[in-house]
Amino acid sequence: MTELPPDQRQPEMPPTRWGDPAHAAPLPDAVRDLVGLVFPLAERPAEDGVAVPPSRLPVAVVDELRGLLGSEHVRLDDTLRRQRTRGRSTPDLLRQRAGDLGDAPDLVVRPGSHEEVAAVLGLAERHRVAVVPFGGGTSVTGGLVARRAGLAGVLSLDLARMRRLLAVDPVSATATLEPGLRGPEAEALLAGHGLMLGHQPQSFEFASIGGFAATRSSGQSSAGRGRFDAMVVGLRVATPRGEVRLGTAPADAAGPDLRQLFLGSEGAFGVITEVTVRVRPLPEVRRYEGWRWPSFAAGADAMRLLAQADLLPTVLRLSDEAETAVNLARPDAIGGGQDTAEGVVEGGCLMVVGHEGTAAAVDRQEAAVAEVLRGAGGTPLGPGPGEAWVQGRYAAPYLRDSLLDVGVLVETLETATFWSGRERLRAAVTEALVDALGEGTMVLCHVSHVYATGCSLYFTVVAAGGDDPLERWRRAKAAANDAIVACGASITHHHAVGTDHRDWLPAGIGPLGVDVLRAVKATLDPAGILNPGVLVP
Amino acid sequence: MTELPPDQRQPEMPPTRWGDPAHAAPLPDAVRDLVGLVFPLAERPAEDGVAVPPSRLPVAVVDELRGLLGSEHVRLDDTLRRQRTRGRSTPDLLRQRAGDLGDAPDLVVRPGSHEEVAAVLGLAERHRVAVVPFGGGTSVTGGLVARRAGLAGVLSLDLARMRRLLAVDPVSATATLEPGLRGPEAEALLAGHGLMLGHQPQSFEFASIGGFAATRSSGQSSAGRGRFDAMVVGLRVATPRGEVRLGTAPADAAGPDLRQLFLGSEGAFGVITEVTVRVRPLPEVRRYEGWRWPSFAAGADAMRLLAQADLLPTVLRLSDEAETAVNLARPDAIGGGQDTAEGVVEGGCLMVVGHEGTAAAVDRQEAAVAEVLRGAGGTPLGPGPGEAWVQGRYAAPYLRDSLLDVGVLVETLETATFWSGRERLRAAVTEALVDALGEGTMVLCHVSHVYATGCSLYFTVVAAGGDDPLERWRRAKAAANDAIVACGASITHHHAVGTDHRDWLPAGIGPLGVDVLRAVKATLDPAGILNPGVLVP
Repeated sequence: MTELPPDQRQPEMPPTRWGDPAHAAPLPDAVRDLVGLVFPLAERPAEDGVAVPPSRLPVAVVDELRGLLGSEHVRLDDTLRRQRTRGRSTPDLLRQRAGDLGDAPDLVVRPGSHEEVAAVLGLAERHRVAVVPFGGGTSVTGGLVARRAGLAGVLSLDLARMRRLLAVDPVSATATLEPGLRGPEAEALLAGHGLMLGHQPQSFEFASIGGFAATRSSGQSSAGRGRFDAMVVGLRVATPRGEVRLGTAPADAAGPDLRQLFLGSEGAFGVITEVTVRVRPLPEVRRYEGWRWPSFAAGADAMRLLAQADLLPTVLRLSDEAETAVNLARPDAIGGGQDTAEGVVEGGCLMVVGHEGTAAAVDRQEAAVAEVLRGAGGTPLGPGPGEAWVQGRYAAPYLRDSLLDVGVLVETLETATFWSGRERLRAAVTEALVDALGEGTMVLCHVSHVYATGCSLYFTVVAAGGDDPLERWRRAKAAANDAIVACGASITHHHAVGTDHRDWLPAGIGPLGVDVLRAVKATLDPAGILNPGVLVP
Repeated sequence: MTELPPDQRQPEMPPTRWGDPAHAAPLPDAVRDLVGLVFPLAERPAEDGVAVPPSRLPVAVVDELRGLLGSEHVRLDDTLRRQRTRGRSTPDLLRQRAGDLGDAPDLVVRPGSHEEVAAVLGLAERHRVAVVPFGGGTSVTGGLVARRAGLAGVLSLDLARMRRLLAVDPVSATATLEPGLRGPEAEALLAGHGLMLGHQPQSFEFASIGGFAATRSSGQSSAGRGRFDAMVVGLRVATPRGEVRLGTAPADAAGPDLRQLFLGSEGAFGVITEVTVRVRPLPEVRRYEGWRWPSFAAGADAMRLLAQADLLPTVLRLSDEAETAVNLARPDAIGGGQDTAEGVVEGGCLMVVGHEGTAAAVDRQEAAVAEVLRGAGGTPLGPGPGEAWVQGRYAAPYLRDSLLDVGVLVETLETATFWSGRERLRAAVTEALVDALGEGTMVLCHVSHVYATGCSLYFTVVAAGGDDPLERWRRAKAAANDAIVACGASITHHHAVGTDHRDWLPAGIGPLGVDVLRAVKATLDPAGILNPGVLVP
């Protein structure tokens, strides 16, 4: 069992903004010009100046929790309760910026082990207190907002103390991680064994191992390494009814794969307390490059060829014309990255191709991939655009804060479908967003996750905030969700369901699918205390 | 929608033996010598000479079914009822050879569409009749034996009329297949589009698409193409409560992946009526070769290196010393194949490596794989042993019949674990089998399915049948199951749970996992008519 020294832990995010305050940057003038929107600065309430509603939990419950975990791990203070309020969707940030802390948990508890989590769940069930597991707090779909109706209060079950590497099996290439480890923390611990997980969603720096599992996260290296759910071979879950341990083999035929019920369960079926994942040796070589495509369709078709030939590089992303223009015109801006003379293209689409692994594997893969891409009409741009992307890969949420500061509404949403439905889905979602948000709205799109049979589509929307940006976005998001469902596509590829997608989930799994989710929840959480209102319609 | 001409359909299997009677062969003398067992020929009852118990279904139910499906698709005749009795495990065959047809279904119905399946389920629920979906009848784990207690009878829901290719999406590389298609039939229909599924378990010639899905089948090309569950992107399921349709995208984060609940559900949650799978272009090149290893451990370690380097060929199999000796000494015997001077090795282990795909991909893959295998200490044996394996890949069950004919007990079982547990598991299962069956028992082992984190182990047991071979095998199988569970391994890698593994399933998923399965079943099948007694403990 290995623990990370406290000074190597990731910092807390402020309640109204993304990320590490030390990395926040003012809005570059270039971006302000680019989006063409000049609005009065939105009022930014001082972060400690807003009152958190008083905790509604009975003192007896608080005392019992103190007896269970120790007083220092049962926190009623406003600072932590504010930090554990909601996630980091644009609506979440807008509400928090407006001083609305109505969803603050009544209490934050920090259990230190599976057994302590189990004890907290038992207590919460007895007192009918909602439990919201908190990993990194990076949900962008309302996954941290529990329904209070019929319950005595809401408890944030903060996994911050469960940040250990529990076991490494170098022969089987597996590692068992605690759920509270943030992405870089898990990688630092594994690097001590010459290993890595290699799962990097945009939220990598702050999101947690438990969150990756509970939301079926997909990382920027999913092309080569697979989604997080594909990396998981074992799970331990605490539920109010007891423990579930799964994973006797990498794969088997011993009935339904119940791991796949807990992956994506978003805290509604239990609290994931251990995750056993496939790990890999640290790569000897990392090589990123850009490719230019005459159109989005041409680039996406080339991705399809690679996927169907089982020839996927580690990273494979394609920006549409609009996103390419924004990135290349302002490489220090949306999508981040350094200015680079090399590889700037006009009127086309940028693809980023990344290869990681042993030198021999990278050479082999790079040559085979390049052959397909050239054959499909791509033009190599060299390492410049690839390296620029690597530099800025986690930067976009910081830019969102800067744009929100000047009254610009920025948000992202994503979906997935089969290849033959790609263009129809892209057009339908774009049209729904522009219709809802009006002229001047920018809709950027990229493909960042590909499969043999289909791909994800990720949209970034930039629009005027207006007088009521929350309501504007609510309508636009609903229109986009309706369009996705009308296309028969998935309501979410990697952002999960939370509360924001919950009402559209039945379109994808049908009424009986919903009944199955309800039956599973009723079995594991009969009192309905686990993240109530999240996931299950 | 494409249908196969009747003359291209696979034949029916006889009730007491495997496969196509035209392909049955007498036991080669060489094998008789090899196993060293000479027993009197077991009595073989004439297949039409055994009485099938009278059907117990009320006439009113039969008449209602006739009205629903047409009289020609509601069959009470002994021949078909006998053919729909049990599966093809050695105990199944022994019981059938002994004239025990106590598990014969009361009636065989052949619905022609999803809607007709749904109607049959509605009727069966009203009359409390057990429904056993029948695809290829190749279960080796008692998956076709339903519990009669508390029910009015047992109905075999034969999917023989549902053998159409419903749709092909060449852009997305998917095809939608009906569940009654046998392996070769599905491939013949897809080949008409230049496509293939490429899923070949040993039961390929007789097993069905629905069965592959319902039992989480794994084929002989699983190394390169993945298990059947990994090929499935969409499912349509008829349940007594209504229809479930799943699969809006290749993968997503819209909650738990409910496809993974129906994959492996063995007819206990519903009847799979459509399966949408990933398909691939027919390979330009197929190349198979043998490699020699000084020991099973050395060969298995090399497989691990390939899997952990994401460098798996299409086919990858390794026989232990005993299985290698049997195969190479008698290449026309167990495992089948042609005699070949090339590649015969003594005192080592044979690995079969197969590459399929475009010429360029096969060249690239073959070179990279060979480099790893040479580096790990393997000796290339050329194409001889590979081609011999291809020739005999579906032959072993025929040989089992010939051995059973002379009183030799032959059966197989399989499990899976993580790489670090491989040797312990192999030793424990071998010891349990030899302990239970006594001196002279042969236990052969191979690895045929590998993952980055672990592998399957497949055991073939050859022993004296004795006076009560059924009871001898029951005890040996229980001992092997206990050993598997004691090692923390999976009770089945690709044979499924059925009734034979049901009592060991809780060891792998725990009591809460069992409760989840029960809750799902109660939701979809409240009257408990779907394959009762199968899968769910």
